[in-house]
Amino acid sequence: MSHWNHKDLLALGDLTAEELLMALDTARAFKGVGERALKKVPALRGKTMVNFFVEPSTRTRTSFELAAMRLSADVINMEATASSLTKGESLKDTALNLEALHSDIIVLRHCSAGSSEFLARRLQASIINAGDGAHEHPTQGLLDVFTMREKLGRIEGLKVAIVGDILFSRVARSNIAALTRLGADVTLVGPTTLVPEVFKKFGVRVAHHIDEIIETTDVINLLRIQHERQRKEYFPGLGEYVSLFGLTKARAARLKPDCLIMHPGPINRGVEIDSDVADESRSVILEQVTNGLAVRMAVLYLCAGGSGIPTTS
Amino acid sequence: MSHWNHKDLLALGDLTAEELLMALDTARAFKGVGERALKKVPALRGKTMVNFFVEPSTRTRTSFELAAMRLSADVINMEATASSLTKGESLKDTALNLEALHSDIIVLRHCSAGSSEFLARRLQASIINAGDGAHEHPTQGLLDVFTMREKLGRIEGLKVAIVGDILFSRVARSNIAALTRLGADVTLVGPTTLVPEVFKKFGVRVAHHIDEIIETTDVINLLRIQHERQRKEYFPGLGEYVSLFGLTKARAARLKPDCLIMHPGPINRGVEIDSDVADESRSVILEQVTNGLAVRMAVLYLCAGGSGIPTTS
Amino acid sequence: MSHWNHKDLLALGDLTAEELLMALDTARAFKGVGERALKKVPALRGKTMVNFFVEPSTRTRTSFELAAMRLSADVINMEATASSLTKGESLKDTALNLEALHSDIIVLRHCSAGSSEFLARRLQASIINAGDGAHEHPTQGLLDVFTMREKLGRIEGLKVAIVGDILFSRVARSNIAALTRLGADVTLVGPTTLVPEVFKKFGVRVAHHIDEIIETTDVINLLRIQHERQRKEYFPGLGEYVSLFGLTKARAARLKPDCLIMHPGPINRGVEIDSDVADESRSVILEQVTNGLAVRMAVLYLCAGGSGIPTTS
Repeated sequence: MSHWNHKDLLALGDLTAEELLMALDTARAFKGVGERALKKVPALRGKTMVNFFVEPSTRTRTSFELAAMRLSADVINMEATASSLTKGESLKDTALNLEALHSDIIVLRHCSAGSSEFLARRLQASIINAGDGAHEHPTQGLLDVFTMREKLGRIEGLKVAIVGDILFSRVARSNIAALTRLGADVTLVGPTTLVPEVFKKFGVRVAHHIDEIIETTDVINLLRIQHERQRKEYFPGLGEYVSLFGLTKARAARLKPDCLIMHPGPINRGVEIDSDVADESRSVILEQVTNGLAVRMAVLYLCAGGSGIPTTS
Repeated sequence: MSHWNHKDLLALGDLTAEELLMALDTARAFKGVGERALKKVPALRGKTMVNFFVEPSTRTRTSFELAAMRLSADVINMEATASSLTKGESLKDTALNLEALHSDIIVLRHCSAGSSEFLARRLQASIINAGDGAHEHPTQGLLDVFTMREKLGRIEGLKVAIVGDILFSRVARSNIAALTRLGADVTLVGPTTLVPEVFKKFGVRVAHHIDEIIETTDVINLLRIQHERQRKEYFPGLGEYVSLFGLTKARAARLKPDCLIMHPGPINRGVEIDSDVADESRSVILEQVTNGLAVRMAVLYLCAGGSGIPTTS
Repeated sequence: MSHWNHKDLLALGDLTAEELLMALDTARAFKGVGERALKKVPALRGKTMVNFFVEPSTRTRTSFELAAMRLSADVINMEATASSLTKGESLKDTALNLEALHSDIIVLRHCSAGSSEFLARRLQASIINAGDGAHEHPTQGLLDVFTMREKLGRIEGLKVAIVGDILFSRVARSNIAALTRLGADVTLVGPTTLVPEVFKKFGVRVAHHIDEIIETTDVINLLRIQHERQRKEYFPGLGEYVSLFGLTKARAARLKPDCLIMHPGPINRGVEIDSDVADESRSVILEQVTNGLAVRMAVLYLCAGGSGIPTTS
């Protein structure tokens, strides 16, 4: 069996197909832990993980915090507004200080692409990218792929449509990297401003009409409309977006009977997705959340060199 | 012995007398734990409690957090300003996400009456109401009753005066529910605007002059003047309030020698209560805080199905 | 061997030379714990430490939090903006409430000098001063002395220069107290407005030109320029400060080859210290951070009466 050779997880684009599968298999083992009455394993006991979020995200922070607790690690939460960054200290100096406090793992959410890599080169601690600007959000990509594989039994040859603001989406980039590496057939769907043709160089198709994929795709992954990161000139009006790209009831009725409906959350009911469609049986949005915990346990375990191979219970 | 049949604690009005006594007896067992050198028991090890506070309250949050830690549960803190609610996600979706993360218990503080019940109906996790608008604050009511019973040996027939802003007080509602169920003789005291006659339907007396109860009551429970929730038209001036309803030194001198002086805190010294009176021997304000920890341990233990009956040390 | 007789750590000025050495020796024992794979010891298991920060400081808070976790204590974080203080409750009442919740240790950061002592007199819990106004920051002072002693083998007779805003610095006061007690030869360096002659009464020298110490000092400890606490009338322009008192490359070249360069952090690169000088081999700034963890473990252990003498691994 192969060995995990990365102290950091910065981008899914860095991983081979074999490494991606190793992370997914480890996550499957940990998923069993979450279903037991006693959800803790001692794998990272005595190790310290710092949740260092310079950009707020309660959901991702909480998921990493729970993942670390279940591995028996100690967890410190740091937010930018509370941190020394507000006193003018640089990201590098803050991170060096965290390492000097014997932090074993730093989970970084930051608005700048490349911030995690910047730290990974300078620190001995494991750096886990929890989203760096519009670059990558590798644990989100892994949990999406994990969910597709668990539900549909394979990734190779799977038709996956990713719909919405691809241009500014780190979730899309991580999905594209992992899905293409594992042989999926990926189509990016959205207006020309948000899904430029240049993305084709990543080995994906581009579609500007949702009708091109709605009846044939195996998976439809709807990206969140993130007003924060979008500049007005790229974006049609909200009503126009819904009418062209929202997963309405009418469109959901045209999806294949076993098509997976996915969304990284938090969902805007009535925008990217109709509220009833979000709750229907083909929707695996909440299972993605549950799988995120298993995936993050796996990533922390692999990167921090946890002792003992996890086995399913 | 009876069995605890509730996955949630939403309101003391939902509990029978037998259930109230069961919670109080369980709290008494846990109070012993807080007095030991080693304050932890493994009852909820591996379980996860989320402190989900959409309305800030450091005191109640801290009390629940310590209670969970002493039961060896893992604790996650989420505040509204930090949470996805600020991105427009609904309470229900946020809670569904917490459940998808395998949270066993969600402690909810929310400004809307009925918010805890709303979640309890939709989630399998235990929901503990830590205050929902002006509706109920059941663990506060339980700790108040616990303190009266511990100090005075009984609840039945006890004369209890609750003074202040009854109309907007969830603390008052929880106290009224438990005290009347257990046979206490409750009088609500305050100006007509804050203590309307309609409250009599709950089986309590209403008094608009503190003189009506000051010399005969066994317990005087002073509610905090909460400027946040009070509309000006209901409330006399602060000076007028103190002169009519504040527990001044002169009034305290007229209380029975063994009358309990209670307050849910934080106290406004010199407003609801004279500063010296707050610190005198009949005041059990700090013991209420200590008892709150035991009561919350009991509630978490009962609702989350902790293993093993706690025994006093 | 001597016995630790303090429930609190309020100021290094309160400690005898023997007590200072006892704290430093205990820290040395705990430093070994931080270098082991399993960094936790059960010394404070079941005890609760509250990080009560009325003035924000992520670095100091995090260091105390990690120290407590490594001693297996439970940790609660409270910040002023989140706490009841914002509802008008007094410091004393908030602290009494923390004690009523069976908190064993309260770590207090507060903008008022004497705030820790105020609490220590009124509470049975151990109070650890994490910085009180411009008075003292005893764990910072201890970690500075620990670092000097570890690196240079002694304190007695050591020439130590403290440079910058002495007048408003609690770090300077704690350093002065410990260093003079242990026999170091301390010189305070800065403009006359920030280093008044009156400091000589503490048994130190005063210098208004950095040239007076640059070639002979064994340690140069650069204080952070803290705009928050400085009034304009005391302070020259920033450029003027750098030209007169900053540790530039040119000045660093004149330091002794084994001179220790210290800074309590966070550093302002290019202000108190040139960026390259901060990273050179004589700089022990990050080691100070690591030592802070060991020192805080020692202080928590000694004050909270941890069981069992720690031994190096």
